[in-house]
Amino acid sequence: MKATVQEIALMIGAEIEGNPDLTIDNISGLEQAGPSCLSFLANPKYEPLVYSTQAGAILVRTDFAAKDVISATLLRVSDPYLAFTQILEIVQSSMRQVHPGIHPTAVIGEQVTIGEQVHIGAYAVISDGVTLAPHAVIHPFVYLGPGVSVGQKSVIHAHVTVYQSCIIGNDCIVHAATVIGADGFGFAPQPDGTYKKIPQLGIVELEDNVEVGANTCLDRATMGKTVIKQGAKLDNLVQIAHNVTVGESSVVAAQSGISGSTTLGKGVMVGGQAGFVGHLSIADGTKVDAQSGVNKSIPVPNQAFRGSPIQPFRQQLKSELLFRKLVDMESRIRELETQLAAK
Amino acid sequence: MKATVQEIALMIGAEIEGNPDLTIDNISGLEQAGPSCLSFLANPKYEPLVYSTQAGAILVRTDFAAKDVISATLLRVSDPYLAFTQILEIVQSSMRQVHPGIHPTAVIGEQVTIGEQVHIGAYAVISDGVTLAPHAVIHPFVYLGPGVSVGQKSVIHAHVTVYQSCIIGNDCIVHAATVIGADGFGFAPQPDGTYKKIPQLGIVELEDNVEVGANTCLDRATMGKTVIKQGAKLDNLVQIAHNVTVGESSVVAAQSGISGSTTLGKGVMVGGQAGFVGHLSIADGTKVDAQSGVNKSIPVPNQAFRGSPIQPFRQQLKSELLFRKLVDMESRIRELETQLAAK
Amino acid sequence: MKATVQEIALMIGAEIEGNPDLTIDNISGLEQAGPSCLSFLANPKYEPLVYSTQAGAILVRTDFAAKDVISATLLRVSDPYLAFTQILEIVQSSMRQVHPGIHPTAVIGEQVTIGEQVHIGAYAVISDGVTLAPHAVIHPFVYLGPGVSVGQKSVIHAHVTVYQSCIIGNDCIVHAATVIGADGFGFAPQPDGTYKKIPQLGIVELEDNVEVGANTCLDRATMGKTVIKQGAKLDNLVQIAHNVTVGESSVVAAQSGISGSTTLGKGVMVGGQAGFVGHLSIADGTKVDAQSGVNKSIPVPNQAFRGSPIQPFRQQLKSELLFRKLVDMESRIRELETQLAAK
Repeated sequence: MKATVQEIALMIGAEIEGNPDLTIDNISGLEQAGPSCLSFLANPKYEPLVYSTQAGAILVRTDFAAKDVISATLLRVSDPYLAFTQILEIVQSSMRQVHPGIHPTAVIGEQVTIGEQVHIGAYAVISDGVTLAPHAVIHPFVYLGPGVSVGQKSVIHAHVTVYQSCIIGNDCIVHAATVIGADGFGFAPQPDGTYKKIPQLGIVELEDNVEVGANTCLDRATMGKTVIKQGAKLDNLVQIAHNVTVGESSVVAAQSGISGSTTLGKGVMVGGQAGFVGHLSIADGTKVDAQSGVNKSIPVPNQAFRGSPIQPFRQQLKSELLFRKLVDMESRIRELETQLAAK
Repeated sequence: MKATVQEIALMIGAEIEGNPDLTIDNISGLEQAGPSCLSFLANPKYEPLVYSTQAGAILVRTDFAAKDVISATLLRVSDPYLAFTQILEIVQSSMRQVHPGIHPTAVIGEQVTIGEQVHIGAYAVISDGVTLAPHAVIHPFVYLGPGVSVGQKSVIHAHVTVYQSCIIGNDCIVHAATVIGADGFGFAPQPDGTYKKIPQLGIVELEDNVEVGANTCLDRATMGKTVIKQGAKLDNLVQIAHNVTVGESSVVAAQSGISGSTTLGKGVMVGGQAGFVGHLSIADGTKVDAQSGVNKSIPVPNQAFRGSPIQPFRQQLKSELLFRKLVDMESRIRELETQLAAK
Repeated sequence: MKATVQEIALMIGAEIEGNPDLTIDNISGLEQAGPSCLSFLANPKYEPLVYSTQAGAILVRTDFAAKDVISATLLRVSDPYLAFTQILEIVQSSMRQVHPGIHPTAVIGEQVTIGEQVHIGAYAVISDGVTLAPHAVIHPFVYLGPGVSVGQKSVIHAHVTVYQSCIIGNDCIVHAATVIGADGFGFAPQPDGTYKKIPQLGIVELEDNVEVGANTCLDRATMGKTVIKQGAKLDNLVQIAHNVTVGESSVVAAQSGISGSTTLGKGVMVGGQAGFVGHLSIADGTKVDAQSGVNKSIPVPNQAFRGSPIQPFRQQLKSELLFRKLVDMESRIRELETQLAAK
């Protein structure tokens, strides 16, 4: 990023108070900012930092009234945080610019459909029958198995593996080394104690606007689909087993795991390292805290849970509090026993 | 898959009741099935679905007696579920067909032994001294380090890394992006608070019929071997530390971790997100529930455990029940204190 | 490894008692050692094994006095374990020898700086503006995004992805399939229940002497840096969220996760499968046990914690003990109630 204060003010419709010719080459919080950084003041409690920051320019509210001397140039806007994220987005899109075109080392199979403005990076392998919609971005070392389809503007980062026939919607982002469509973990126990593999013939479908973190696993369904619905966000190192459904705009934090055939409703929030047993149905808007173990279906929407196994959030907090006081509780029982024996 | 009811009946020895010319192009459970789907009725409790399903054809028991009108063509067999899995296997083998041959982009080192009918996909890297037994399947982007060997009919999926000298047996499946043979996590603390790496010179060996999920890590031994014995199955995102042994036909679910030098016996079952500390010995047939923490050896076979740290299964369930009632227990203690004080 | 006892004695300054011409081709513990193996006796409690081992040669203390017949050749040194690890290191460096040079299939972008004696393996992709310091080793299928830098003698194993602009210091080791610099998990909830991605524009920096295991994820900062400080060691499948700092010589075991903006001090030790919520500050020398859940900052250095949520170590052990006795405690309360009712 390299732009003058004047140019930035134009992008976001700000009023300048100070030096319009100052060159900005970085963006940062008020504390870490240097003299060529743009920063912002959104939360009034950070106002004191405005008077001590090294930042070259600061986004402030239109009605901001300084109580002390400010060395930085001010950019006045109605919503400084919103303006700041707009600038972040402009910076990001300039940083991540990829040019349409197919790298000569990419291996492209037969009957592959490639939309306009698609980018395919070095050493990508696009198997037979793959469909890449317009503006899809395929980074180096991506493996798309036979019949996979990737929707418009979706970005598949380096080293992602997508097994046969899986579907990735529009505007999705899949981070590096994630595996979509590996076999579900299904084995039939045999009388001699060994296991026989149950074929896993379904697929995985990511609907539109899904983001999946790095090194995450989404297993293909035994039959039918494992589905990540529109707008859902999965973090890194998440396990999604066969035939799971993650509902619209649900969010699953890192290292959580969802066992086979469990369905999360819409707007569910799952903290990190939580686990769900299989075949559950989790109501819309459910919140599950980090490290929880969900062992039963949740029929009522918009409730919060915590613990392994889970309890309603507040009830679990009370149990945890008393768990920490068990030594004290045991002493009280002992004391009662002594007193009673003495009577 | 595309076959007529007649053709399917021939494969599995079924008796047709309905239209033998119907074309089937998918397989599905009764609820999701469409008019060109084959489905099955194994569990009598699902019989009502037989009368409402859209399925074109249904596998039923030889002696099945319909209580209402069924629109689907019936295929009568002695064991509908077995017949169904046979069809799944036929479909899978047709879906996953890979042709023997070495893709021209594969990099093959010196002194590599390649058996007959081996498949090596695009951009695989096969280092010096590797041995690939007949019918091995090496998918794109697989990296086999120097001296690695892969047994007959084993399938190594895309992006798998196998470090130097590790051994993969016959009929194994290793899913995408799994890492076999990275260094064990061994560091000697130094007097100044820093750590010195302890060289990790051993290997990893997978015996025959082992399946390993995606994004799983199996670390090489410090000296000697980390071993996954015959028929064991590991799910996705599992951590197997240096010098661990996983016994014959043991099963480890997703996101579980086994610390260094622990040995699991034969037929052990480990739920998801469970952990084992190091240097333990776990008896044959032990069952460990999801999210458990195993902190001691288990000498008696065929016992079930749960909790972190573990207790015998039923005992842990009782503790958990009372944990949820701690508030009540504390009230009862308080009540006793009040009553006693009043006497 | 292949060397005579004579040659080994020279490397480590040992006095030979037995056959100097014996050829050693492996190293092993006393129990597993065969006749061409070198082993060692450091801990006196293993002395009985010295009389029964098959090892061809054994490192013993200078003053070791045998109480029985020993068939092996002895190599007398002042510190047998130290001598043994020296040999391990020699063996490792011979095993892992990579020759400087760039494989012809590597894709090298524009304005890439490559120091002397660098190794770049087959199918590595080195993007525009990358800097590789002297003696860096880049294994096959490594993807280094635009502007990445890798320090001297650092080793990047197969299939590692390093996103744009991240920095890897000197003498680092990054194991296979690890992802450095994927986007942090940051989304702003919108009034309609959907999420808007917050651009993640910072980087990840590994300082010198950092080792990172396989399939681990280190997310780039939203702004600024996610930092792994000098000498820190991360195991496999670890999650490091955006803007986390891991302090100097801290150690994080497998499958642990550290949420956004949390800072670990110097010399912190984290057991496997532990989790930290975000925005915490953890004092130097803190020890956190496996599967713990750290939900608050720890201001006092050198304390040990355990549990989810954590308690001081000993206090948690007491709570856990009583948790296992909850059934007994409940009976005692019931007994008290009965007794009191009878009075």
